[in-house]
Amino acid sequence: MKEILQAMSATNALFEQEVIAKGNFGVLKQIYTANARILPPGADMVSGRDGIIAFWSTAVPAMGITGGKLSTVEATQAGDGVVEIGIAQLETKGGPAAGKYVVYWKQEDGRWKWDVDIWNMNA
Amino acid sequence: MKEILQAMSATNALFEQEVIAKGNFGVLKQIYTANARILPPGADMVSGRDGIIAFWSTAVPAMGITGGKLSTVEATQAGDGVVEIGIAQLETKGGPAAGKYVVYWKQEDGRWKWDVDIWNMNA
Repeated sequence: MKEILQAMSATNALFEQEVIAKGNFGVLKQIYTANARILPPGADMVSGRDGIIAFWSTAVPAMGITGGKLSTVEATQAGDGVVEIGIAQLETKGGPAAGKYVVYWKQEDGRWKWDVDIWNMNA
Repeated sequence: MKEILQAMSATNALFEQEVIAKGNFGVLKQIYTANARILPPGADMVSGRDGIIAFWSTAVPAMGITGGKLSTVEATQAGDGVVEIGIAQLETKGGPAAGKYVVYWKQEDGRWKWDVDIWNMNA
């Protein structure tokens, strides 16, 4: 489990440092599985990585997100996947924003990736 | 998997027919595991069934929820648990409201129950 947690941490760091901080949305291919599903607040579910890349490409600037930190609260192995509960601390142009998420992780092409991703904000 | 899906459907029906429609919050003991975690929009995570019962006892009347229907979109076996993606169609005093959720299910005392439960609204 220790190696899996390290791999998960590397994926989460990519989201923080590339996607959110730099707007490098192509990196989402290394973060989400090809068939991933996201369930964003205020929108319908999006299925498939191409739609997910389109979602974040619009959402990050629309929400004014400039930085963020994901912290794993709990990670439980479940079959060949992992159920993660985590906390997201975002920096936005409007100030800090706290959220939380559940991600179901799967391995794809030797990487640990987000297969199901749902979140909401604390306030 | 068919038997598990039937058991899950029975648990979801309890939430619809007892908790939401009748405000029978004691039934939540048959729906959530003892160590369950919920991640509600607009609030911090709540850990443990007692806190979860307190949450719903307040939230259902506060949100004016009078009825609802949970529909499984996807259910994937993951170790000794199941990852479910679903849609919630709620009736509230303010009108209909659509949401979606991810539940990680576990078996406890011979029942299939919600061990991790996170949701958000579509609008």
